[in-house]
Amino acid sequence: MIEVYSWPTPNGHKVHIMLEECGLPYRVIPVDISSGAQFEHKFLSISPNNKIPALIDPAGPDNKPISLFESGAILLYLAGKTGKFLPSDTAGKYEVLQWLMFQIGAVGPMLGQTHHFRIYAPEKIKYAIDRYSSEAQRLYKVMNTRLAGSTYLGGSHYSIADIAVFPWLRSWKNQGVELSDYPHLKGWFDEISARPAVLRGLGVMSEQHKPLTDEKARENLFGEKQYRRH
Amino acid sequence: MIEVYSWPTPNGHKVHIMLEECGLPYRVIPVDISSGAQFEHKFLSISPNNKIPALIDPAGPDNKPISLFESGAILLYLAGKTGKFLPSDTAGKYEVLQWLMFQIGAVGPMLGQTHHFRIYAPEKIKYAIDRYSSEAQRLYKVMNTRLAGSTYLGGSHYSIADIAVFPWLRSWKNQGVELSDYPHLKGWFDEISARPAVLRGLGVMSEQHKPLTDEKARENLFGEKQYRRH
Repeated sequence: MIEVYSWPTPNGHKVHIMLEECGLPYRVIPVDISSGAQFEHKFLSISPNNKIPALIDPAGPDNKPISLFESGAILLYLAGKTGKFLPSDTAGKYEVLQWLMFQIGAVGPMLGQTHHFRIYAPEKIKYAIDRYSSEAQRLYKVMNTRLAGSTYLGGSHYSIADIAVFPWLRSWKNQGVELSDYPHLKGWFDEISARPAVLRGLGVMSEQHKPLTDEKARENLFGEKQYRRH
Repeated sequence: MIEVYSWPTPNGHKVHIMLEECGLPYRVIPVDISSGAQFEHKFLSISPNNKIPALIDPAGPDNKPISLFESGAILLYLAGKTGKFLPSDTAGKYEVLQWLMFQIGAVGPMLGQTHHFRIYAPEKIKYAIDRYSSEAQRLYKVMNTRLAGSTYLGGSHYSIADIAVFPWLRSWKNQGVELSDYPHLKGWFDEISARPAVLRGLGVMSEQHKPLTDEKARENLFGEKQYRRH
């Protein structure tokens, strides 16, 4: 059975939702990033950048096991394995891929910085808060404009581009954004929020959700120590 | 002929190098991001996130034109078009894809923030400079560790993962990093630096390279205005 090394964060949720959407059986191995489990040797051997999620599929290509890190690569792998949520025609595939890359390279890392400076950083730094809140608003506008002319981010069908972006927008309140200012994006968000597989994916490890602002979590997530640990 | 809308930045260089490595004929259309050309309507119609590079291939899938944004999607497209720099076997392909995603999601955006706070930001903010310089060092260590056990980032062959990462490491001096502290990474860097196609790719628009720190460039690249412009 597929094993997912994960935690209930946006990048974890992407993969939980994809597995639920594909109807693939899987087992979750919690990696408590607030307690530093991402720095343990066994986890680093499958995820050398010490980030969740990672995945092991014992029935990979040629029926041999495959191990993967990076949520974007995992989404592509699961789409390839099942033939789902990524168009099979070349033009349609690249339309999805560019919006997937937009999530991987912009929505994820930039909204991550927004969360950091608005919530987690021990000092409130106006320049950084303004920089990343403005960037969040800009990204929401880009997506709203796209969805004014396209049913889904990657085109006319729900795809891994939507699955990748959706979990990052759930905490819009923490990003200095008012979701209802972006009506096309809000409509898309509300539709996806109601999908049964999405609800199941968001339920994975939901009991583990806790504030990441205590001293020890802060050190494991943002502290100097992590830079000496592997 | 392929048209590349681009500028001599790391994300531009990725695509220039890939086109040179593949031996594909192409024409460059400069998009001067320091003067705000990325906000012009025509460019936004092919790159809705107002970032370079974008690419139009008049001989795309089914011999129809295709337009693409996001350098990671462009690299995948060119690899698919030519059958080069991405293994054809599934396991090998995903080994490359996870390191490509590592560049798209971590190396690019995080080193971009490092550049911003160390060089471009109008105020010197110690917390942010420390945060992103430490992250740069962490990322270099992850890559050095990988290259201690693998000839290239994506495995035993030079691939789009190497092409994606390489241009970001050229300005290690601006990232608070000493490249020679990472000997496996330095060996890899020196080897790639000497490839003729890489040298040709880096030469594209090299006459345009200029400091991005004057007032107008700062406004177009980092200012409030960009958030109101499209």
